[in-house]
Amino acid sequence: RMKGAILNVLYRSPVCLFLHLSAGLSAAKLLKASGLNPVVLEARDRVGGRTFTVRNKETKWVDLGGAYIGPTQNRILRLAKEYDVKTYKVNEQESLVHYVNGKSYPFSGSFPPMWNPIVVMDFNNLFRTMDEMGQEIPKEAPWRAPHAEEWDKMSMQQLLEKICWTSTVRRFATLFVNVNVTSEPHEVSALWFLWYVKQCGGTMRIFSTTNGGQERKFVGGSSQISECMAKELGDRVKLHSPVYRIDQSGDVVVVETLDNSLCSCSQARYVIVATPPSLNLKMHFKPELPPLRNQLINRVPMGSVIKCMVYYKENFWRKKGYCGTMVIEEEGAPIGLTLDDTKPDGTVPCIMGLKRICEIYSRVLGSEEALHPVHYEEKNWCEEEYSGGCYTAYFPPGILTQFGRVLREPVGRLYFAGTETATEWSGYMEGAVQAGERAAREVLCAMGKIHQSQIWQTEPESKDVPALPFITSFWERNLPSVGGFLRFVGVSSVLSTAAAAAGLLAYRKGLLPRS
Amino acid sequence: RMKGAILNVLYRSPVCLFLHLSAGLSAAKLLKASGLNPVVLEARDRVGGRTFTVRNKETKWVDLGGAYIGPTQNRILRLAKEYDVKTYKVNEQESLVHYVNGKSYPFSGSFPPMWNPIVVMDFNNLFRTMDEMGQEIPKEAPWRAPHAEEWDKMSMQQLLEKICWTSTVRRFATLFVNVNVTSEPHEVSALWFLWYVKQCGGTMRIFSTTNGGQERKFVGGSSQISECMAKELGDRVKLHSPVYRIDQSGDVVVVETLDNSLCSCSQARYVIVATPPSLNLKMHFKPELPPLRNQLINRVPMGSVIKCMVYYKENFWRKKGYCGTMVIEEEGAPIGLTLDDTKPDGTVPCIMGLKRICEIYSRVLGSEEALHPVHYEEKNWCEEEYSGGCYTAYFPPGILTQFGRVLREPVGRLYFAGTETATEWSGYMEGAVQAGERAAREVLCAMGKIHQSQIWQTEPESKDVPALPFITSFWERNLPSVGGFLRFVGVSSVLSTAAAAAGLLAYRKGLLPRS
Repeated sequence: RMKGAILNVLYRSPVCLFLHLSAGLSAAKLLKASGLNPVVLEARDRVGGRTFTVRNKETKWVDLGGAYIGPTQNRILRLAKEYDVKTYKVNEQESLVHYVNGKSYPFSGSFPPMWNPIVVMDFNNLFRTMDEMGQEIPKEAPWRAPHAEEWDKMSMQQLLEKICWTSTVRRFATLFVNVNVTSEPHEVSALWFLWYVKQCGGTMRIFSTTNGGQERKFVGGSSQISECMAKELGDRVKLHSPVYRIDQSGDVVVVETLDNSLCSCSQARYVIVATPPSLNLKMHFKPELPPLRNQLINRVPMGSVIKCMVYYKENFWRKKGYCGTMVIEEEGAPIGLTLDDTKPDGTVPCIMGLKRICEIYSRVLGSEEALHPVHYEEKNWCEEEYSGGCYTAYFPPGILTQFGRVLREPVGRLYFAGTETATEWSGYMEGAVQAGERAAREVLCAMGKIHQSQIWQTEPESKDVPALPFITSFWERNLPSVGGFLRFVGVSSVLSTAAAAAGLLAYRKGLLPRS
Repeated sequence: RMKGAILNVLYRSPVCLFLHLSAGLSAAKLLKASGLNPVVLEARDRVGGRTFTVRNKETKWVDLGGAYIGPTQNRILRLAKEYDVKTYKVNEQESLVHYVNGKSYPFSGSFPPMWNPIVVMDFNNLFRTMDEMGQEIPKEAPWRAPHAEEWDKMSMQQLLEKICWTSTVRRFATLFVNVNVTSEPHEVSALWFLWYVKQCGGTMRIFSTTNGGQERKFVGGSSQISECMAKELGDRVKLHSPVYRIDQSGDVVVVETLDNSLCSCSQARYVIVATPPSLNLKMHFKPELPPLRNQLINRVPMGSVIKCMVYYKENFWRKKGYCGTMVIEEEGAPIGLTLDDTKPDGTVPCIMGLKRICEIYSRVLGSEEALHPVHYEEKNWCEEEYSGGCYTAYFPPGILTQFGRVLREPVGRLYFAGTETATEWSGYMEGAVQAGERAAREVLCAMGKIHQSQIWQTEPESKDVPALPFITSFWERNLPSVGGFLRFVGVSSVLSTAAAAAGLLAYRKGLLPRS
């Protein structure tokens, strides 16, 4: 179709792993479908990036990287359907457990219930406020939010200190940050975190299993999607090919890769760089990257997580009436959140935890059996040279407003994909697909094959996995904050501050049915 | 001396620039002096890293990178003496100028004077507190400070909000952070900044011209030191050799560099990596770096600075009684601090500013002439691929305590230098020399040539540039903080909070002669 011209669109697709899927592959797939001849350069010996499905006899298969999908993630669901990869629901039939102050409290719904009315108000106010703040933030340009600078200068910890009156809620909010972005509230910008939650559809959507980001998994593992795309692309996908140099000073872009022993060159008219932003640093650029991008890629580290799967002989937790979801709040506990990872047919009983160990499972589930797993799998994403960490890059305070606008701005003939550049479910497999397809269309637009207005496309909703709205109750919408309540009952703000400091911080549980 | 064994100690020495000097070169110099045969691999077409002396007819010579030295920087002074590079004092004969709220106030001493007694107390208390906190922080292991975790979770902005009562002092403190570490108070960890100031000798030493870090410059420019070392090392220094791969899986370490067109390999028994930590990312490692180092190098970005030199026909500021130092506090002003950069013999009148423009000089100096420069030089360090930014790496909140301990921990046969790994004047040329020599001695120790106790060495004081103590007055030591004062005069803390909020924040200048 290009009448003799060789078009090598090159990707480096250590793209995205763990909760992400190769943006490079989905870009290449779209370009191939448009009649072009892309080449995918993959640093590792496998495709899939931050998704990583391992097959062995103990586990049948296990996702040691990105695994969960849910409603509104329509692009990844579209790809799965195309390749006939089925989804199944993560078990949430029985009770969830909230473990706090050494005791386990069974509950149902997305968030643990609270009993103390002050805590209920505080909890409700926090999540309502985060969602309201999120509404002010444009998902495609968070740096243009009305309060962008103010919120970006604050860490999430500072924001939590401003909003929360009770230590119970502050502690739970810390877990909420830890679990969603694998970093600490004092490390991340408030603006960035609020944007992250917003572009996933809000606090309920991001944190829920049923009707949320963790609703389902792929039967057979998430890497299948990348594997199917790679199969479709055939020998256009080159494994073992870390890119160390991109030279766009000449007529064509020259890309050099570390092959097994010798250096090897590829040429292309355009290049899509589909790595996390910080992995751009693995490449030497000619000409050098512009100053803002050069500084951006030094400022957005990857989160830290170890994904641990513990396998048992029996599914003992279900027998005790627990579904396997544990929300664990304990000083120094290695795990904050678990989910059942038993196979959909009930075989291979397993609990997935984000970090380490199993003594804690025994304490939470009150069962000796938790101390006797039959198998264990883990993946420390911090040690991966070609990911840098997982799930995704985070923005420390001050970076998003100063450097964010160049996140996906092309540099000459280089275009940028990777889930970090997405505007919906960035940080997830869905974001990787959105980013890869958008970058592919940027290249098509640069070639004059499509119009600029076609670059960004919305995705029709998946029929198999429709999204339900989250209905908020009258009380959730109208319950005052603790501060508002105290002012309402006529206590002066000076006195209320004292009261809060002295007394309220001691409370811990209350009741707030959130769904 | 090694009886036939080839010892290539390899460095990559885009080491350090701007306020730093090639740690790689000083390591190589020491190794050569020990009878070994090191090779220095330099990414750029010049040595010197973040020091960068340009020669042309308009300026004679100008340091567009690291330039200043002062008392207690004994290692760099020792090297300068060895190569017969002379120093001269930065002009501080006439008045300094403090520009605030649109007016210029001449002053003398290191810090601008304050008039309002509340501001005097607040100012005195802030700098005293920073120095006292610094005393708790071990310079070789800040993560072991008694309050390390607490201070590391805080940004400097949060710490300033805790300590400062008046906006005047908070504003000045912001400038103090900007100028010293080319980043914003909300971006940097309080623990890290307090450590940084401490290991430079405290607030007075780091900020002063006379008797401080900016006392002197090198006649002929700072790059001369690197150039002399490179000359001494001869063809052991390879320019145009960015390292993109380090493979220590075999008997020798194999280092691959981007030569002009082809790839080229070197072999060595040991490698000293003398880049800023984040530039480790430019290299592909085999085996991969350990998880903590892999995450560290993604978390310590370089500061952002543009160094600007504006040249005039005449030294008009001295005629007006100003020495050329301007401390500029204005919302959105592009420059925070300037220094006279006229040559020691009075020729080539010039003002050095850290950022942009010259309208502001005209306003501050009240002189039309400032609008008519005859020449201009600038260097935007943010665009440098092989520096990433300048002067030095900064630690965002939470990073130093979690990842700091691996900053200079060897990985197999790799050793780490670069000014960021120093324990005295880290971030400066002095720190680069300390780091380079320490890393060289680590290699000598690994080879069995010296004992472990010889790795860290103190440096005798320079006779030419002796350090004077900073004498604090009775009042500086004993003046209460604003909070302490208000409690003392019997105002309740509730009332004082209200008073501070309502009234004190409006004040702006006071008097505190600090030296």
